[in-house]
Amino acid sequence: MGYAQIDAFRGDANTIRVIGHRGARGILPENSMIGFNFALSIGIDLLEFDVLLTRDNVPVITHNHELNAAAIRGPDGKFLNGAGVRVAALSIDDIKGFDIGRLDGHTDYGRRFPEQAQIDGVRLPQLSELLQLVSQPQYQHVCLMVEMKSDPNAADEKAREKLVSVVANAIRQAGLTNRTLLHSFDWTLLAECKKQGIDMPTSFLTQSKHHADDIGDESALHIMPNLSTLSIPDEVKKAGGALWCPHFRDISKDQLLRAKDLGLCVAVWTVNEPDDIDAMIDLHVDAIVTDYPGRVQRQLSDRGWLWAR
Amino acid sequence: MGYAQIDAFRGDANTIRVIGHRGARGILPENSMIGFNFALSIGIDLLEFDVLLTRDNVPVITHNHELNAAAIRGPDGKFLNGAGVRVAALSIDDIKGFDIGRLDGHTDYGRRFPEQAQIDGVRLPQLSELLQLVSQPQYQHVCLMVEMKSDPNAADEKAREKLVSVVANAIRQAGLTNRTLLHSFDWTLLAECKKQGIDMPTSFLTQSKHHADDIGDESALHIMPNLSTLSIPDEVKKAGGALWCPHFRDISKDQLLRAKDLGLCVAVWTVNEPDDIDAMIDLHVDAIVTDYPGRVQRQLSDRGWLWAR
Repeated sequence: MGYAQIDAFRGDANTIRVIGHRGARGILPENSMIGFNFALSIGIDLLEFDVLLTRDNVPVITHNHELNAAAIRGPDGKFLNGAGVRVAALSIDDIKGFDIGRLDGHTDYGRRFPEQAQIDGVRLPQLSELLQLVSQPQYQHVCLMVEMKSDPNAADEKAREKLVSVVANAIRQAGLTNRTLLHSFDWTLLAECKKQGIDMPTSFLTQSKHHADDIGDESALHIMPNLSTLSIPDEVKKAGGALWCPHFRDISKDQLLRAKDLGLCVAVWTVNEPDDIDAMIDLHVDAIVTDYPGRVQRQLSDRGWLWAR
Repeated sequence: MGYAQIDAFRGDANTIRVIGHRGARGILPENSMIGFNFALSIGIDLLEFDVLLTRDNVPVITHNHELNAAAIRGPDGKFLNGAGVRVAALSIDDIKGFDIGRLDGHTDYGRRFPEQAQIDGVRLPQLSELLQLVSQPQYQHVCLMVEMKSDPNAADEKAREKLVSVVANAIRQAGLTNRTLLHSFDWTLLAECKKQGIDMPTSFLTQSKHHADDIGDESALHIMPNLSTLSIPDEVKKAGGALWCPHFRDISKDQLLRAKDLGLCVAVWTVNEPDDIDAMIDLHVDAIVTDYPGRVQRQLSDRGWLWAR
C-alpha cells in the first residue's frame, strides 16, 4: 500500500501530528475559508472538514444535513432557530445567502466555543474553494481529511454512490488524490469507496456512545455500525481502512497497540482540554484532531514533541 | 478638538470598541504581522502595539527594551534565557536574526498564554511594515494605538525627543496621522509630543500597582508619574490627553464618569478573563484592550452589544 497521505498523518518517536478540526473551530467559524486559512497560517498542514451535497449536487463544506441553527444565520440576518433548513433542499445559489460567521451564544452549541471570533459576511464554502486553496504552491504538503456525511434520514445506496462519486471526482480533478483521505462514520459509505475503486485511502471514524462533542451537533451514532462486541482495530483493518479515528475517550492503550500492529494510523477526535491533550500525548497516538490547534502545538512543544517533520 | 481617530476609539449607547492588544497575544505571537493580520481578519479595526528604536534609529514593534527571553529565540534557535539582549544595542539587520514565533512554556510569561500558536520563522516587524499593511484600501478604517516605550534605564530628554520625532515622522510619511493615537505610560514623553507640536492626539496609560499583567513583562511603574493623591482623569485632561487608558482593575465608576464629563475617551487594558470582560461591559467603558479579541466579541454579541459601527 503505502499511501503518501497516510504517512503524512502518522507520527513517529518524536512527532505527534495535529489536525485542524473544521479548520480551527475554537478560534474561528467552523468549516470556513477564514478558519482553514488560519490553520494553515500557523503551520497546521492536516485539515479535517465535512462535505455534503446540495440539491444540485455541489459538494459544500458544512457539518449538518440540517444547517446548524446555532452557527448559521439566514438571509434575514437571524440565526436559524428551529427553521430546519436542509442542505439537500438548497441549491448552491441558495447556500450563498447564509452567513456562517457567528455563533449564537444563547444555545448549548454556542456556549461550547466561547472565544470563536464573530464575523459578518462569511459564506459557506464549496469543496472546490478549499481544494483550490491547498493547490497553491506554498501548501503542497497539506493533506485533507474529508469527512463524507451520510444523511441519517436518507442514507440509501443511491445517496452514498452519488456522494462518493461527486466528492472523489472533485478531488481527482483538483489533482489531490495523493493528499486526501476519505473519512466517515458510515462504514457502508467507506465500503462504497472501495466498490467504486476510489484511489484514496479510507479513514474509519468510531464513537461508542454520546459524548460532549455531540452537544448541539448532528450525532453520528445512527449512521455507524454496532461494534460493541468486536475488536474495532481488527474491524477497520478487515474493512480495508488505513486510518482509525476513534473518539479520544473510547481508546485504550491495548487498542492503540493492536491498531499499530495491524499497520493502522491512529488519530483521535476531538481533543480540546489541556488534560485530555496531555493524556493523548502520553498514549502516543499518531495524530490529534482539535478545535484549538495552537493549544495542542503549545502542549506538544512544552513537552519536547514536534508536530511536523 | 474632535480628532477622527478618537471618535473611532469611542463607544456609544450600543457599542463598546475592541482593541487588539499586541495584535491578538492570546492566539498568535505578540506584536507580529501574523497577529495583526489575524486581528484585522476578524474585524478588529483598532490595533495596539509597542514601538522602540534600534541602535540605527529604526522603529521596531516589540514590547521590552531587553528582548523578551520567554518569547524570542536567537539566531541559534534557543530562547534568550538571561541573555539580556537590548534592542538599542542592535541594528535593524541584527533584529532580523531573531524569531518571535514561539513562547517558552517553561517560563511564567509563557504560562500566561497557553494557546498561543507556535510558529517558526516569524520576524520582529518594523513599524513601517504595519503602517503599510493598514494603508491598504480595505483597511482605511483601521486606527492605531502606538505605545511608545521609554527605556526605564535611559529615559532622558534626548531619548524621548528622538523616539517621538522618529515615530511621528514615520506615521506622517505613511499619511496616517489622522488614524493614529500616541500612547504611553511616560507622561513626560507625551508632553514631548505636545512640545514638538505633533498633530496626533495623545493617550495616557496608567497603572496603580503591580498586576498579573506584569508577570514576566517589562513593568511600566518606573516610568509613570506618581498620581496616587490626584484625580487621574483631571490630570490626563490637564496634560492635554484625549484618551485615558487605565488598568481595568484600577478604574471606578466615579472615575469613568468624571473622565466622560471631561470629554475623555476611556479604554481599559488588558482584559482577558470572562468575568473581567463582563465587568467592563457593565461599567460601559468606551473600549476594551484584550489579548483575546474573539472572546470579547463573543461576550459583547451575546449581550446585544456592537463593537463596530
